[in-house]
Amino acid sequence: MRKEMHRLVELDREISLFIHIDALLNWDQETYMPSKAVGERAEQIALIEGLAHEKSIAPEVGDLLEALGSTSENPMGDPALAPAERAYLRVLRRSFDRETKLPSDLVGELAREVSLGQAAWIEARAKNDFPAFAGHLERMVELKKLQADCLAVGASAGKKPYDVLLDLYEPGSSEASMAKVFALLRGELRALLDKIASRPQVDDSFLHRNCPASNQQAISEWLMDIMSYDPGRGRLDVVAHPFTTTLGASDVRITTRYLPDFFVSSLFSTMHETGHALYELDIAPGSGFELTRLADPASMAIHESQSRLWENIVGRSAAFWKPNYASLCELAGGALGGVGFDAFVKSINKVEPSLIRTEADEVTYGLHIILRFELESALLSGSLAAKDLPAAWNEKMKELLGITPPDDSQGCLQDVHWSGGLFGYFPSYALGNLYGAQFWDAMKVAMPDLEERVARGDLGSVLSWLKTNVHASGSTYLPGEIVQRATGSALESSHFVAYLNKKYQAVYGF
Amino acid sequence: MRKEMHRLVELDREISLFIHIDALLNWDQETYMPSKAVGERAEQIALIEGLAHEKSIAPEVGDLLEALGSTSENPMGDPALAPAERAYLRVLRRSFDRETKLPSDLVGELAREVSLGQAAWIEARAKNDFPAFAGHLERMVELKKLQADCLAVGASAGKKPYDVLLDLYEPGSSEASMAKVFALLRGELRALLDKIASRPQVDDSFLHRNCPASNQQAISEWLMDIMSYDPGRGRLDVVAHPFTTTLGASDVRITTRYLPDFFVSSLFSTMHETGHALYELDIAPGSGFELTRLADPASMAIHESQSRLWENIVGRSAAFWKPNYASLCELAGGALGGVGFDAFVKSINKVEPSLIRTEADEVTYGLHIILRFELESALLSGSLAAKDLPAAWNEKMKELLGITPPDDSQGCLQDVHWSGGLFGYFPSYALGNLYGAQFWDAMKVAMPDLEERVARGDLGSVLSWLKTNVHASGSTYLPGEIVQRATGSALESSHFVAYLNKKYQAVYGF
Repeated sequence: MRKEMHRLVELDREISLFIHIDALLNWDQETYMPSKAVGERAEQIALIEGLAHEKSIAPEVGDLLEALGSTSENPMGDPALAPAERAYLRVLRRSFDRETKLPSDLVGELAREVSLGQAAWIEARAKNDFPAFAGHLERMVELKKLQADCLAVGASAGKKPYDVLLDLYEPGSSEASMAKVFALLRGELRALLDKIASRPQVDDSFLHRNCPASNQQAISEWLMDIMSYDPGRGRLDVVAHPFTTTLGASDVRITTRYLPDFFVSSLFSTMHETGHALYELDIAPGSGFELTRLADPASMAIHESQSRLWENIVGRSAAFWKPNYASLCELAGGALGGVGFDAFVKSINKVEPSLIRTEADEVTYGLHIILRFELESALLSGSLAAKDLPAAWNEKMKELLGITPPDDSQGCLQDVHWSGGLFGYFPSYALGNLYGAQFWDAMKVAMPDLEERVARGDLGSVLSWLKTNVHASGSTYLPGEIVQRATGSALESSHFVAYLNKKYQAVYGF
Repeated sequence: MRKEMHRLVELDREISLFIHIDALLNWDQETYMPSKAVGERAEQIALIEGLAHEKSIAPEVGDLLEALGSTSENPMGDPALAPAERAYLRVLRRSFDRETKLPSDLVGELAREVSLGQAAWIEARAKNDFPAFAGHLERMVELKKLQADCLAVGASAGKKPYDVLLDLYEPGSSEASMAKVFALLRGELRALLDKIASRPQVDDSFLHRNCPASNQQAISEWLMDIMSYDPGRGRLDVVAHPFTTTLGASDVRITTRYLPDFFVSSLFSTMHETGHALYELDIAPGSGFELTRLADPASMAIHESQSRLWENIVGRSAAFWKPNYASLCELAGGALGGVGFDAFVKSINKVEPSLIRTEADEVTYGLHIILRFELESALLSGSLAAKDLPAAWNEKMKELLGITPPDDSQGCLQDVHWSGGLFGYFPSYALGNLYGAQFWDAMKVAMPDLEERVARGDLGSVLSWLKTNVHASGSTYLPGEIVQRATGSALESSHFVAYLNKKYQAVYGF
């Protein structure tokens, strides 16, 4: 390794330590911190994040990148470098450009508008008063366009704003590439929803029986164990809104919450977060790059593919429950008394159009995302004015899900994202489902008896394939490269569509 | 406030944020961190501690101190400054000198010897092999002498090594001042122990009945509540070795452990740690000095005075249990069934010479400390060679406690302190008892009905007096100044001796 590369790794490791310390400060705030410590904690977090930012934009980083031949136009640098080194330069250049290309005025204005906008959004949602938020939304759209213009340099030169923003969360993606995969998905999900609606609804009333937190905790710990989540490298805690967070290469923690009258919420939340954690814990981008940004996950959507594959494709399958249902019944106390295996599997796959994205099932979830994708694209292109969002939202809800929100709080004001400037983030959620299904199909090609294996309780085969084909490389490849290498083709929604059709045919008998 | 003072406060606040972040990293490591994260956690801690150290020895700090007239000889600086500002300069100058006066070679050698010495000590203690540790002890004594020589400048010029080291933990103290208070104490404790030995032993067998962790936790939380520990500014967690730690001005956390067959261990540990926490939470050295080193506790011994006052003077008194014993019996489940009030109060005040300091009662504890004080003084002065420690230890154990350790593991190898270079630290533990008793007597002068108040369940009177007379000023005064201001006289062991005699007369009926 050349001395410049060595120094880049050294600087990056220190940033990584700061990022993990920051993660601890945030994890503690959500889990155990006494309430009155919140003011000083904000100062502690600002100090650490400021230091990480300062380190990552240091002129020395730019000089080292240049010395190794990495520029905005040619991010991977000197072709004589090893492949891992070139991939590493791509990651660092991308981050360095992103963090240095924004004028500090704009960074300050964005931060202020996020703060003001989120406060206004909280109030507007509580009071169902969209007009009070519209001005903030309009201002945020303008700032995001300015931000995108600043970032549209090097390989991104000439890109339109929404493309630049999408690429922030899903490197290598664009509105056109997303629209292509969503086009088939849109029609297929609608058609599937119609088929399901024509059949008698599934009964899931027994899932709302009381189940004490201690039983739910035992279920969560049992699932973490059978998914091979190493208790020496992570833990489970209780929070208001579950998340996974990385505090170190061997310290990836998950969280959940226990609803006494809906125990499958914590059950699937634990499988989901454990899926995220297994990804972070398996990253091994090659010797010399531990604790660098090459050991970061490839993208938000690839991350979601892991959580959703475990939660939905594995966790809501009959095959998975075959060897495990008896244990679940026992751990659940009396909550599943008298509920047969088939009834249980059907109940956890109930489909029903609903207003709130975060509560949606596997079929309608994608439609919630497509709605947001289309609307944020229109906001960024200027074809939709902020003030007209509620009408456009309600129209699309009717078109895609067949229902109309009774108010904006349950409509266009439901998500925090736009008030926080997170335009371009929503599609990752849906892409996660598509990647997951495509990975699963490739896994079945590699292991034709995959479902039998799962039905025998062998989850190691699944984890092992994911580790090799998705986890280990970290950020070495772009998401599009990962799916190509792992499955032999670019991302297509057909795998997810086929998976859903097969599953719901069995559940709803159409 | 002059601009130099303002800048000092600003720099100091940042250091304080780092110190609190460091405390979180350590707290998490002891409470919740997954085991395999330990390697990276060490790097995270080293990074933050390094930054804090770098900030505290920055030449700018030295320049600012000088600009405000603070020198090693005249630490409080310009007499025209406000009293709080002058006190603040004293604290900062003391810390700056201590951190800058040591050559980096010596700092490195000390760190290496601590690391080697502690590893050797762990093995020597496990194998009862003092000779394997003797060389390390000898080397550590030499290094501590060199360290003391480097620090013997300014107001400390000409001090002998042990005086310099004592002053590190108890500012303003010296071997002579300690010897003076310990002289009376030594004889009185011996005499008291003889009196107790002549009486029938107290029965405490019922304290070893089984009491589940959940009951013990309920007892701890109840005690924290009646001691007015604000749950919005702290919390209780379980660890192997209980401690209190400050993660923020409003985030002071305590810890405990639950021994199923000795529930009073967690009970008194919680009162002890809550005593520490109440001190840290009440410090308020005046506007403008929040989150600076003026808001640090005055000394380790003053800290111990608070924990021991609550644990022993309050927590082991009949007055305290009078209004609380019924609740305790209820919270303890069946563990105190059939145990009368008097028997309980006697049982928690049982005195018995024993080998291990950390398990000692209120009478013998001081003798364990005097033994260490005398031996470390002899090691530093050269009158005792490291290799002769075991014989000297055993001789003093016989002389002071009347017992002889069966091996060195239960004798001179029992404590971690000396292997870690903590010479001069032990006396603080005993001083804590002396300060506590003297504060208590002053409190009784201010509130002649103090014991009746406690017996009515009024602990607010105690806390309020401590807050005003001890806590609030933080590091504004030296420990000797605090005791003078709060009690009207210098530290004397007579208060503690009188307290013990009165208490054990009642318990043992001599």
